[in-house]
Amino acid sequence: MTVIKLLGKPKLKNAVLIEGLPGVGNIGRVAVGYLIEELKAKKFADLYSKWFFPFVMLHDKYKIHLLKNEFYYWKAKRKGQRDIVFLIGDCQSLSPQGHYEVGEKVLDLAEKVGVTEIFTVGGLATGELEEKREVIGAVTDDKILKKYKKHKIDFNAGEKVGYIVGAAGLLLGLWKQRDKDGMCLLGQTTGFPIVTDPKAAEEVLDVLVKILNLKIDMTKLEKKVKEMEEFMKKVESLQKRALMDITKAHEKPGKKDESLRYIG
Amino acid sequence: MTVIKLLGKPKLKNAVLIEGLPGVGNIGRVAVGYLIEELKAKKFADLYSKWFFPFVMLHDKYKIHLLKNEFYYWKAKRKGQRDIVFLIGDCQSLSPQGHYEVGEKVLDLAEKVGVTEIFTVGGLATGELEEKREVIGAVTDDKILKKYKKHKIDFNAGEKVGYIVGAAGLLLGLWKQRDKDGMCLLGQTTGFPIVTDPKAAEEVLDVLVKILNLKIDMTKLEKKVKEMEEFMKKVESLQKRALMDITKAHEKPGKKDESLRYIG
Amino acid sequence: MTVIKLLGKPKLKNAVLIEGLPGVGNIGRVAVGYLIEELKAKKFADLYSKWFFPFVMLHDKYKIHLLKNEFYYWKAKRKGQRDIVFLIGDCQSLSPQGHYEVGEKVLDLAEKVGVTEIFTVGGLATGELEEKREVIGAVTDDKILKKYKKHKIDFNAGEKVGYIVGAAGLLLGLWKQRDKDGMCLLGQTTGFPIVTDPKAAEEVLDVLVKILNLKIDMTKLEKKVKEMEEFMKKVESLQKRALMDITKAHEKPGKKDESLRYIG
Amino acid sequence: MTVIKLLGKPKLKNAVLIEGLPGVGNIGRVAVGYLIEELKAKKFADLYSKWFFPFVMLHDKYKIHLLKNEFYYWKAKRKGQRDIVFLIGDCQSLSPQGHYEVGEKVLDLAEKVGVTEIFTVGGLATGELEEKREVIGAVTDDKILKKYKKHKIDFNAGEKVGYIVGAAGLLLGLWKQRDKDGMCLLGQTTGFPIVTDPKAAEEVLDVLVKILNLKIDMTKLEKKVKEMEEFMKKVESLQKRALMDITKAHEKPGKKDESLRYIG
Repeated sequence: MTVIKLLGKPKLKNAVLIEGLPGVGNIGRVAVGYLIEELKAKKFADLYSKWFFPFVMLHDKYKIHLLKNEFYYWKAKRKGQRDIVFLIGDCQSLSPQGHYEVGEKVLDLAEKVGVTEIFTVGGLATGELEEKREVIGAVTDDKILKKYKKHKIDFNAGEKVGYIVGAAGLLLGLWKQRDKDGMCLLGQTTGFPIVTDPKAAEEVLDVLVKILNLKIDMTKLEKKVKEMEEFMKKVESLQKRALMDITKAHEKPGKKDESLRYIG
Repeated sequence: MTVIKLLGKPKLKNAVLIEGLPGVGNIGRVAVGYLIEELKAKKFADLYSKWFFPFVMLHDKYKIHLLKNEFYYWKAKRKGQRDIVFLIGDCQSLSPQGHYEVGEKVLDLAEKVGVTEIFTVGGLATGELEEKREVIGAVTDDKILKKYKKHKIDFNAGEKVGYIVGAAGLLLGLWKQRDKDGMCLLGQTTGFPIVTDPKAAEEVLDVLVKILNLKIDMTKLEKKVKEMEEFMKKVESLQKRALMDITKAHEKPGKKDESLRYIG
Repeated sequence: MTVIKLLGKPKLKNAVLIEGLPGVGNIGRVAVGYLIEELKAKKFADLYSKWFFPFVMLHDKYKIHLLKNEFYYWKAKRKGQRDIVFLIGDCQSLSPQGHYEVGEKVLDLAEKVGVTEIFTVGGLATGELEEKREVIGAVTDDKILKKYKKHKIDFNAGEKVGYIVGAAGLLLGLWKQRDKDGMCLLGQTTGFPIVTDPKAAEEVLDVLVKILNLKIDMTKLEKKVKEMEEFMKKVESLQKRALMDITKAHEKPGKKDESLRYIG
Repeated sequence: MTVIKLLGKPKLKNAVLIEGLPGVGNIGRVAVGYLIEELKAKKFADLYSKWFFPFVMLHDKYKIHLLKNEFYYWKAKRKGQRDIVFLIGDCQSLSPQGHYEVGEKVLDLAEKVGVTEIFTVGGLATGELEEKREVIGAVTDDKILKKYKKHKIDFNAGEKVGYIVGAAGLLLGLWKQRDKDGMCLLGQTTGFPIVTDPKAAEEVLDVLVKILNLKIDMTKLEKKVKEMEEFMKKVESLQKRALMDITKAHEKPGKKDESLRYIG
């Protein structure tokens, strides 16, 4: 009941997958969304799952869309660049087993199209922000640390956090189990987990662009984030919504309801 | 473990399915229930599922019924009308995967009996009601908007809401995935989600009746809603009940219970 | 993962199954437990399920037992009596799908050993108790009502409640789906759902004993309930425990924990 | 989706398995962790499961690890000793069915490598600690009680508790269903369930070491616990985290969010 619909079958070589699903500060969502737009990456697959919210989103004010994750690809244009697969979407799974099952499906497809390395992008909610908010890194293996340590990444994440939640962490954990490697990049952001933070996204983008040898016009980010605003608000709503549902369930019904006497 | 029991096999042509399961204001439930009665639609299937509440309802004060969804059909009587399948029932699923799995079963049956288009009916809780409460519409595709835009439907739902929860949205999302089309009609109602609102149901009915070219005597709606009252109260109780169960779980046991010391 | 271990294969004729799992007031548990003891019914099966609590109970202060449901049988001794299967146990399922799946397993076994009719015993928490606390009845079909209406049963349950929760209701709902019949008997008890109420159990026993034409010495009930006390306290603890777990999850950790900064 | 990766296939004779997964006071985790280190036991299997948290842990500050349970073995060095399998890990399952499914997988492997008896180690949160905190025992069968009663174990657990939660209890319950035997040892610890208690771990170790005829230098325990500190803090965070997630879900969003109006 997790289904991938292929729209194309790109043949990529030694490609990197960059994950940017909604999460803390929606940093991955914004960063990867911007890369997709700027690089004019091509969509090649949709992923639907019974582990997502039982909701549909409304696009353009009236058009119904099942929640989904999407795959895009972009082919390297010159030496020093790599083919890229992008994973972006409306949401993550609601339950633990959903996270694991969707994760495995994502990695199956990644392997099939030629992905050899994975970068995930997430956020770290630090409460107050430090003066200099360096991007935090975590890796599957020491050789990845060595490979990327020249970049401005703080590899002491373990001092600040004990674990990484959701797709940003799990995709890499499951990938490592397949004897493959990758890195997680976390932008530092303020407390409340579900407010989009484009500034933190920019900091992660800076690192990613250098690692991947991309030429990206960063000046349009602010404008693009504005354009994405309506959509990002819906993504945030979706996240809040999950909280609300539970909260609602706790409001005690105002009046004693005779028809509710407990039976069993 | 989602089972459909067929009582008949209607052969329909280019039929429309109208969904009216319990939800906000029970608008769909009331509207579709009234259409079934007025058109004397014939039942042809029951759907049971382990994803429903582990409850039974009591009809006629003492008769036990498993929770279920029901399918009815009605054949077009004259030109300009279409064959109709009605989906009505006691409840929706409790969990996300239940919503998805029951939804797929519903659509499988719909396809088998000849349904080509789906209308879902739901409610939009707006807090305060605006003077004129127009029916809100959302569609799977622009061509549906074009087809029905002459009717009194406000297609700016996306401005008011970001998504549609439960069967009213999900059935259409899953239907679109099968390259088929449909429309969601939402009556506007006041805040508390689980009080039946026959006035909002009437507004949606007005639109539906015109679209489907039906002759329905609307004057009996009020009387019929009164007759349905006992049943609707049970449906509401069922919805409140889901909330209550969780609320109850939160009441702290009054006394320290020696036998409850934590172990593990 | 719901497993029935057979210890014997009784061949019964036109037998009745009487369910008495823990529930409101533990009325069914006490009533059926007393019948099993008084009739010296023989155990013939254990049912284990992954849908039960992930706990073990301690019997005799130190002996570990997986949670289970148990089946006993008793053969009619003289004309006017019927063979009986008893269903008793430590707990019910935790989730909706567990209730449905365990329920089907129970009914499969019941059919196999010759059960043709089912009685379930539960409790109705009425808040305050009325002067005369008549046993409440609900049935799968009018013919069952007719069959048992001469007994002191109030068949207006539907006025007091809209549905019956858990095994007491669901077993009958699922049984009816198999075109078979049965009756639910509910003792009225006070508010808090998980305090054992032997008085209410006695009232249901009175009705059951007459229906089944049994000779049971009721004077020992009080003494037996005392003997059962330690076990019933554990069953109650188990029920409270389910509540506690959730309650605990809500206590906010006292200190700010640096290592808990949110990531994702 | 619960997978065991074998790194070796030890052939053991009449071996005992000792379980020490995180739990109350992390007593089992500390005690078994210390035994593994002191005996230089060899790892031979990893267990991963979709029933664990959808998290990854960070080791050495930056290295990503999927949550897992691990199996080690140690071969008896002299007469009077037994081959030992150790079960240790980052976490237990999140849901009931996860507990049951992972438990069965553990026991399957245990049987395959020659385990005949199981000891589980857990904690009992007693609120206040009694002067003398004796280790509490529970067994699958009277013959186990007889076998080990000469050791300093209080076999009146049933007076203090009605059941044992999680792996410490369930592994033994499921093991007994396979007609096999074992014992649970519970260290007494103070109230808050998720603070590591090395003192209680030492008391259980004392008993275990005598039963298994091991020569263990206990003086290093304190030092080792210090070394484990960073890891134990992560395990505690993981446990608190589970609570936090739910707590967070209950914070009401501060402002009324127009885009959150309820629909359905």
